[in-house]
Amino acid sequence: MNQGGLAEGVGADPARTSFSMLRDVKEFQAAINAPERCVVPVIAAVAGHVLGLGIDIIAACDVRYAADDAQFSIMEVNVGIAADIGTLAHLPKITGNHSLLRELAYTAAPFSAADAAQLGLVSRVVPGGATAVTSAALALARTIAGKSPVAVAGTKRVLLHARDHTVAENLEYVAVWNAAMLHTESLAASRARRAPQFKPLRTPAKL
Amino acid sequence: MNQGGLAEGVGADPARTSFSMLRDVKEFQAAINAPERCVVPVIAAVAGHVLGLGIDIIAACDVRYAADDAQFSIMEVNVGIAADIGTLAHLPKITGNHSLLRELAYTAAPFSAADAAQLGLVSRVVPGGATAVTSAALALARTIAGKSPVAVAGTKRVLLHARDHTVAENLEYVAVWNAAMLHTESLAASRARRAPQFKPLRTPAKL
Amino acid sequence: MNQGGLAEGVGADPARTSFSMLRDVKEFQAAINAPERCVVPVIAAVAGHVLGLGIDIIAACDVRYAADDAQFSIMEVNVGIAADIGTLAHLPKITGNHSLLRELAYTAAPFSAADAAQLGLVSRVVPGGATAVTSAALALARTIAGKSPVAVAGTKRVLLHARDHTVAENLEYVAVWNAAMLHTESLAASRARRAPQFKPLRTPAKL
Amino acid sequence: MNQGGLAEGVGADPARTSFSMLRDVKEFQAAINAPERCVVPVIAAVAGHVLGLGIDIIAACDVRYAADDAQFSIMEVNVGIAADIGTLAHLPKITGNHSLLRELAYTAAPFSAADAAQLGLVSRVVPGGATAVTSAALALARTIAGKSPVAVAGTKRVLLHARDHTVAENLEYVAVWNAAMLHTESLAASRARRAPQFKPLRTPAKL
Amino acid sequence: MNQGGLAEGVGADPARTSFSMLRDVKEFQAAINAPERCVVPVIAAVAGHVLGLGIDIIAACDVRYAADDAQFSIMEVNVGIAADIGTLAHLPKITGNHSLLRELAYTAAPFSAADAAQLGLVSRVVPGGATAVTSAALALARTIAGKSPVAVAGTKRVLLHARDHTVAENLEYVAVWNAAMLHTESLAASRARRAPQFKPLRTPAKL
Amino acid sequence: MNQGGLAEGVGADPARTSFSMLRDVKEFQAAINAPERCVVPVIAAVAGHVLGLGIDIIAACDVRYAADDAQFSIMEVNVGIAADIGTLAHLPKITGNHSLLRELAYTAAPFSAADAAQLGLVSRVVPGGATAVTSAALALARTIAGKSPVAVAGTKRVLLHARDHTVAENLEYVAVWNAAMLHTESLAASRARRAPQFKPLRTPAKL
Repeated sequence: MNQGGLAEGVGADPARTSFSMLRDVKEFQAAINAPERCVVPVIAAVAGHVLGLGIDIIAACDVRYAADDAQFSIMEVNVGIAADIGTLAHLPKITGNHSLLRELAYTAAPFSAADAAQLGLVSRVVPGGATAVTSAALALARTIAGKSPVAVAGTKRVLLHARDHTVAENLEYVAVWNAAMLHTESLAASRARRAPQFKPLRTPAKL
Repeated sequence: MNQGGLAEGVGADPARTSFSMLRDVKEFQAAINAPERCVVPVIAAVAGHVLGLGIDIIAACDVRYAADDAQFSIMEVNVGIAADIGTLAHLPKITGNHSLLRELAYTAAPFSAADAAQLGLVSRVVPGGATAVTSAALALARTIAGKSPVAVAGTKRVLLHARDHTVAENLEYVAVWNAAMLHTESLAASRARRAPQFKPLRTPAKL
Repeated sequence: MNQGGLAEGVGADPARTSFSMLRDVKEFQAAINAPERCVVPVIAAVAGHVLGLGIDIIAACDVRYAADDAQFSIMEVNVGIAADIGTLAHLPKITGNHSLLRELAYTAAPFSAADAAQLGLVSRVVPGGATAVTSAALALARTIAGKSPVAVAGTKRVLLHARDHTVAENLEYVAVWNAAMLHTESLAASRARRAPQFKPLRTPAKL
Repeated sequence: MNQGGLAEGVGADPARTSFSMLRDVKEFQAAINAPERCVVPVIAAVAGHVLGLGIDIIAACDVRYAADDAQFSIMEVNVGIAADIGTLAHLPKITGNHSLLRELAYTAAPFSAADAAQLGLVSRVVPGGATAVTSAALALARTIAGKSPVAVAGTKRVLLHARDHTVAENLEYVAVWNAAMLHTESLAASRARRAPQFKPLRTPAKL
Repeated sequence: MNQGGLAEGVGADPARTSFSMLRDVKEFQAAINAPERCVVPVIAAVAGHVLGLGIDIIAACDVRYAADDAQFSIMEVNVGIAADIGTLAHLPKITGNHSLLRELAYTAAPFSAADAAQLGLVSRVVPGGATAVTSAALALARTIAGKSPVAVAGTKRVLLHARDHTVAENLEYVAVWNAAMLHTESLAASRARRAPQFKPLRTPAKL
Repeated sequence: MNQGGLAEGVGADPARTSFSMLRDVKEFQAAINAPERCVVPVIAAVAGHVLGLGIDIIAACDVRYAADDAQFSIMEVNVGIAADIGTLAHLPKITGNHSLLRELAYTAAPFSAADAAQLGLVSRVVPGGATAVTSAALALARTIAGKSPVAVAGTKRVLLHARDHTVAENLEYVAVWNAAMLHTESLAASRARRAPQFKPLRTPAKL
């Protein structure tokens, strides 16, 4: 993360080093938060150790499944910094117990899959380790892939908007969204009393 | 939802159809979100199937009780659209596990009263079906009705404000609110060492 | 809370009384929300009754532990007002079940430590009363005190910012924060392969 | 504005009177701010005295033309209150000199059409009194009426959104808006190399 | 501004120096922005040089008058920093030409009272130097002092809120404000057909 | 702008066409708003016709100079759409007369350099056409290039933040910014009583 600082050269004034660091952190954040920009939902299936950057990565995903042996830690305080790649930005909004969240962030204490479920960080704890949790995540992915891609992509975008805006703002946003997106194959098929047939969206992964 | 589109006539350009749809969705949202504008708290007691619009309706209420046989589904992706009447606007703010919420919204999967409790969507799962959950909701309503209506209505309004504003903004808002609303019968009765006597608020249901 | 009103004198017009009340409430809020302005985390360990102002106080803390005998009540509606010192501002953001929160706020109903855990208000219910919960809180405090104070103080500030801003705004904020705060003793020690030695921050308690 | 207070009856506690006042002010605001909800632009042409509520009304319009003899005053401090129907909400956002705005709001001083132009409140000062300014406004209205109603209504809605949101939020909003609204008669006519023919929007005046 | 850094001692790690700087800047900001927290309006009358911190100070005032010989400069870039005590926070919101504002902020170029008027920074350019501008400001202050203090203080607070919130949020805020503040001496006097008699507000200067 | 729609193929359902359009507009916006992401200030010098996209482009720049023969038009309503690449997002925030702005946006009327100055869109009208305005812009660029690049880049970033946030939020942001950026060559040179020597920032153009 401090290559940028080095780019300014030894003896650069500290402001320039800070400026380079800022650029590097922003670039790093953009990379790790790619799942959020992805048009379709991204499911994280974790097993074993999920530490530091691991938390940043799953925090930017839509759904999180954990194997029952998963072990988590928001460990950045152990290296002397505040977590800056997404953990502290996302977790207060997507979980349901700030007391537990702050405790974990201030102590870097390890926590189990069951703790993660209590925190509201994962929606499912899957017995059977990495294989089982991967299976469960793939099954979920297959279910989602069978739905209208326009409806799923719209639901994702509207939920992300809702996270960051008031209820009134989101109602306005979704009304405009659906003014554009209501004519779908689903509705056409439903009117024609036939099964809908979905082609993949011919858009790049991100929006 | 597409009557508005028809109002523009067959062959209207798609922009006009979209414009009419927008108006219709806004009107529909306003109707379904009436519980939020209601001055007094609104309690939803649900049993059996709570699907699509059912979720939109309960999301706009203050308190949600579910019979243990209740079955829920955010089913709009099944008809090819993003839920646009309130579900996606409200649920990220009033529940505590975004991973579970998104999973349910992307799959339209049915979920039980127990799942709804885990999500943080309902505050009580009542054994005994529709009759029992209605009883429980009415008992809660009676308790609330015994409190100072000015205090209850103020608490509702301040909580709705808190949901959509920062802590600092809400502290300012409630301070101004109470500068107007502190002289109540409750305080007068308390000073006079008598039981307070509450008359109903002579205001319309909404504010 | 109405001394300010009195300061304007008997017979002052009601607007002036309201103005004085506003000033008094703002001052009271500032006092009770001091834990939030404190540079280091503040842990609330509660036992017995936590009523009204007690809830305001713990809501402004970072972490909340409850003895298993703790009994809570958001009791302001019983005195005819909306809670105005922090409870209604903080709780919708730090807990995970608005249905339960509103129910408790509208009824002033007592709730147990277990209910508080279900609400997401406390992160730990400690068996053994006041002594045990104090011990647990002190142990947590000692763990936090062993970490880099710059990292812990930064984590607190960034989490408070995240609570009140969008994910994108918080990512920008933490990137700038760490541009300033990345050169710490922790990193220096890690590079020198020695144990870090933390001195206390020579700053006042609040920022 | 205090009929609502009376509705509660003589001797009602002050909190109830305040509650009724709040309802009345909100209703009054909704009426006076109707021009903002109107789908098409609303032009205010003023001559003579524009005082108090007059300012509230023109503040909610899209465009303001003043006869050169127009005389303005934000006169609410003279009746002992802060202007509460729109003046203080709108003017800081639609004008360009807060120093002048606050001076006028604190003193209730009369100001001329030329002052209003300096403040940024009106876009045109028309010599010739009421007749001339009405002519000018009607000419402007005719020009606007000759444009695509979908484009004009969309431009209004997007500008109102821009006033209240960040640049990034508005760019997202207008992108979704145009995803719905890009297929217009204008584009069709342009491709067919013919003059566009606009029918009125078959929507009610407000959205 | 770097005393705080020194407080950490020579050889403190840079993060601690940054932390101390942050505290110092926040304290400095709080001092210089006192005019904004002042209950009554604050008028800045300037003559001669208004440089750097001078701009920060007047930016936090309500009204700005300039002698025709006043000379301004946002000069912080000349000392290698971004202005951090209020200039960059306030000026984009209270003036009406961002192109000119940014030009002045990037170049530290001196600008005249006439330029300040074009920018929308001052509401009046007074010929006659310091004496004349002070007279004009005092005359304005006397006019304001003759108005209802509750109405003037309320107008100030509502305008500050409007600067930082949407139109809808401010309409709600002022409605609640006036629910508390409508019963004033002004209204009582008006009903009794007598001249209102205002006593000073018995509140401290800040709110 | 409708290539994206074509990418979905003839006969694609309208929702997919809308989805592609959305992606295309977002991409187009990102390209045209590049000046805002550029680390150093960008100056627009315009002469002749500045129409539609021309306004979008200059709106994203920091400073705007116009030749006295420049002619502007927000002409999107003439092609049946709301301007969606930046004009409507930026102009309400960077100019000082919404009445004039909306009038121009609803009519697509041409406006002169003098009108643009009255609107607050340009900071300087330069007599002498394209050559003269280019000279003036280059002179301004040279002046800015002589200043501390860290200070200028910081000033830009803080001003952009101020445009989109409250005063309190920007004061916090700039305090953290300067905690990172205060140690500059400017300060070092000033302490050493020598002229500062600025090297270019070794960062890419955007941040």
